[in-house]
Amino acid sequence: MKNPLEIMTNRRTTRDFLPDMPEREKIEKIIEAGTYAPTGRNKQSPIIISVTNRKMRDKLSEMNSKIMGKGSDFDPFYGAPVVLIVLADKNVNTYIYDGSLVMGNLLNAAEAVGLGACWIHRAKEEFETEECKEILKSLGITGDYEGIGHCVIGYKRNENSEKTPRKKNYVYYID
Amino acid sequence: MKNPLEIMTNRRTTRDFLPDMPEREKIEKIIEAGTYAPTGRNKQSPIIISVTNRKMRDKLSEMNSKIMGKGSDFDPFYGAPVVLIVLADKNVNTYIYDGSLVMGNLLNAAEAVGLGACWIHRAKEEFETEECKEILKSLGITGDYEGIGHCVIGYKRNENSEKTPRKKNYVYYID
Repeated sequence: MKNPLEIMTNRRTTRDFLPDMPEREKIEKIIEAGTYAPTGRNKQSPIIISVTNRKMRDKLSEMNSKIMGKGSDFDPFYGAPVVLIVLADKNVNTYIYDGSLVMGNLLNAAEAVGLGACWIHRAKEEFETEECKEILKSLGITGDYEGIGHCVIGYKRNENSEKTPRKKNYVYYID
Repeated sequence: MKNPLEIMTNRRTTRDFLPDMPEREKIEKIIEAGTYAPTGRNKQSPIIISVTNRKMRDKLSEMNSKIMGKGSDFDPFYGAPVVLIVLADKNVNTYIYDGSLVMGNLLNAAEAVGLGACWIHRAKEEFETEECKEILKSLGITGDYEGIGHCVIGYKRNENSEKTPRKKNYVYYID
């Protein structure tokens, strides 16, 4: 396994996935890394919903595409078989930051176990719909959760871990 | 160096730092990892201000303490000699998520190079003050930046990398 700095600097977003379902152990390791992301006052405001069920994955993809203004023929999850949805409790004032840190660990951990991943937005709009509220209810999730993002995961169709250039003036120094 | 999954799951927030300045090379590696965090549409909306200057570090600490409603005798940076401030461009709609991912990489990278780190909030309020706007101006930073967080970094006074328990019901499955 590459060292953590290489993982973070060489990770690239994947937008073309193989349909093969990754091994359960890998998915669990990714999720575990997500749950250990730091959160404000360690309140652990986020939750993760792991979706490997094809029907549910396709349903979410279709809803997401609709929010984008696209049709059901477009798959905003780029063929990824695993969708890890991060939501966070709006009553905790750091919830967006907290949920984002969970997403960050999921993305880095996917890279670490040799999988590709991509942050897909519109989880906020998705989980404002009655349909998604019903999904939460069916899982026994109560409370005031906002969608932070979907981390879609799968095997990469193509390897591409070249570093891309960073913008100029990303970093300033007061030494 | 530990593997990335260990770094992410064993990382603990440090709130007691030694005053010793970490090696420049380590600071640079942490910053590099931060700049490679994913951002919405790769717009790279965040910037990082690296503060190792003692006077500026103390000034920011005092401002931060004041925002907390505490006095100048309290150091909200817990003695850390390095402060990496992340701000992000409010005109990019993913800016809070983007900036948080940069913060996440900084925190994990600090752990990876053997240093401790802590996310200190109130960067938003800090950089709404005229005093901090002047700092941005003096660095030649123009534009509409919001403070996301301070990643304070230094050597840990005590090692503590035991895993802390996660809340129940962090993860739900739709298989």
